[in-house]
Amino acid sequence: MYEYSHGGNAVFERGGEGVIDLSASINPLGMPAGVTEAIIRAIPGCTGYPDSFSAVLREKIAEFESVEPDSIFCGGGASDVIFRLPGAARAQRVMVTAPTFSDYERAAVASGCEIVRFALSPENGFRPDRCFVETVARARPDLVFVCNPNNPTGVLTDARLIGELLDCCRKAGAVVVVDECFLDFAERAGEYTSKVFLGQYPNLVILKAFTKLFALPGIRLGYAISPDKALIDSLYSRGADWSVSCLAQAAGVAALADAVSFVEQTRAFVSGARADVESGLARLGYEVFQSAVNYVFLRNPYPFDLRDELDRRGIRIRSCGDFHGLDGSYCRIAVSTKENNAKLLAAVSEITIKNLGNCESQNTIC
Amino acid sequence: MYEYSHGGNAVFERGGEGVIDLSASINPLGMPAGVTEAIIRAIPGCTGYPDSFSAVLREKIAEFESVEPDSIFCGGGASDVIFRLPGAARAQRVMVTAPTFSDYERAAVASGCEIVRFALSPENGFRPDRCFVETVARARPDLVFVCNPNNPTGVLTDARLIGELLDCCRKAGAVVVVDECFLDFAERAGEYTSKVFLGQYPNLVILKAFTKLFALPGIRLGYAISPDKALIDSLYSRGADWSVSCLAQAAGVAALADAVSFVEQTRAFVSGARADVESGLARLGYEVFQSAVNYVFLRNPYPFDLRDELDRRGIRIRSCGDFHGLDGSYCRIAVSTKENNAKLLAAVSEITIKNLGNCESQNTIC
Repeated sequence: MYEYSHGGNAVFERGGEGVIDLSASINPLGMPAGVTEAIIRAIPGCTGYPDSFSAVLREKIAEFESVEPDSIFCGGGASDVIFRLPGAARAQRVMVTAPTFSDYERAAVASGCEIVRFALSPENGFRPDRCFVETVARARPDLVFVCNPNNPTGVLTDARLIGELLDCCRKAGAVVVVDECFLDFAERAGEYTSKVFLGQYPNLVILKAFTKLFALPGIRLGYAISPDKALIDSLYSRGADWSVSCLAQAAGVAALADAVSFVEQTRAFVSGARADVESGLARLGYEVFQSAVNYVFLRNPYPFDLRDELDRRGIRIRSCGDFHGLDGSYCRIAVSTKENNAKLLAAVSEITIKNLGNCESQNTIC
Repeated sequence: MYEYSHGGNAVFERGGEGVIDLSASINPLGMPAGVTEAIIRAIPGCTGYPDSFSAVLREKIAEFESVEPDSIFCGGGASDVIFRLPGAARAQRVMVTAPTFSDYERAAVASGCEIVRFALSPENGFRPDRCFVETVARARPDLVFVCNPNNPTGVLTDARLIGELLDCCRKAGAVVVVDECFLDFAERAGEYTSKVFLGQYPNLVILKAFTKLFALPGIRLGYAISPDKALIDSLYSRGADWSVSCLAQAAGVAALADAVSFVEQTRAFVSGARADVESGLARLGYEVFQSAVNYVFLRNPYPFDLRDELDRRGIRIRSCGDFHGLDGSYCRIAVSTKENNAKLLAAVSEITIKNLGNCESQNTIC
């Protein structure tokens, strides 16, 4: 049986109703105003095909991103774009970090590529350093995926390091995909985005999605930005036409109508809420890594399964045991509404104290 | 620049507003009752991921098709499924008829497959015969696409011939995909569907979509049916998870609520309307082929471009000049509402008489 390896599916499981799902990291502010009405207005048009080239939507994305419409390819979610990329880049050897989002590797395997993994080190806070660029130079992949900030760690990669990576890869004829699907949640996104490199590096692809930032995972809408027009063309030919539905195109246009202020509100809320959750978890003894975005990444030092314990209390988090380079002691937890964050902290506190009590009564060092 | 090679895009072109678009063959009855409301109800759920396995929808499709839910894979339109198929079937050599729907070949090329084309003969009314099966046996493809009824001809393939093809391909270890996206429009669909072979041939995949029958091209929803569970699993791994949006899943469930009666009404309307359009076109001297479905396929014997002439009058039809095995004298025209069909016939009549007049005045034999 095909195995699904992502968060966000609690609602489809038996008994999943009423569960607080913090296993997928969706903007806690919900979808922007105007999206619902835009979808409703677009329904009658669904008796016609969607515009394969998402022309109107690409104009709006171009404004939002300050790039050219022709440098954008829209797909049915970032995943759809990811699955088109290895073929479009004619890749045979693909480099990913470990840990990182699993779809890069799934897509590469589906395209018959060899995978090379670069192990990020917990001692280094899972932050990529110059050693990553040196390893890429030695391994000579033709496609490199960098998730910035990384999923599931939330850790940012310095723009300077990405510049060095782009330089090294351009010389070797390799394409670099920088996945910035979570970057707009970060307060200092402007200092970290690879958009500054678009003018200089034709081998750069930036990946974005409406899924997380605009809280629209159910819509399926993502996009790639690249200065390489041939690569953009190739993304069209590597999958179905019409991969962005009429409803997704309408929702995307509406979501961008007031995007600047929506992003500001999101950042303000998320940075405060994340700090609260992180400090609460750290106080309880959890090793909290430096996430820049709307999820918290931690290692549980105690000998109990935090995911299972929370699950029993109706809260679902993402165990990271199935990420390469991690084990079940690592977890990713979405920053949610104030109410949900408070429930999470209360539950973790209860679980920790109960289990520490058990440990102490058994004379075990926890 | 990537070239789009399908009908149905008049509305996205400059000046396309108000055009009667008969270049895509969508059910003229429009979407079934209840679909709009179902989409509206599903909007709030779009802040969560869609069910990757479309479990509720597959149950409904299973009822409608009288097959097992586990034998169904749902994708973001039939095209999404088509692009996953060559990889899922580990195909290297793919056989298609000429003419046929272009996406089979596009998908095969994207997967790096070699293409073998079987030329259907106009003398034979473009009907596949035993020679097709013999050619498959000699060419030894590992994946064969049969569009039944064929797009753009509307011509049906006998179930017995498909049985022979399945037999021949099973022995050779090849997969046969029978695309029945238009079959439910045909009055005698029950005699032609390959579903009767599902119990006997694990190498059979049947392709269906909500696009044409339920007039939902803008939604992106299609599916494959196969008794081969490993192939179904492989379809999941060959592309993005979540390829069917929350809105598409809800729309699909609603469309199937009263599907039997909707299909009956559709067939009754389409067969009458098609007969009217076909006889009108034949009376004007056009060579009309035997379509079983909601589009008419014809050859224009006159020395003028019917597509361009109709385009100037605000009616868009599909010139078949870009189909392998056809030229610009062949056209596909959707059967539409009574009003649109009458406008089409009036325009074709005017064009034909005007051009014949011109020909006669120039002493040319038209």
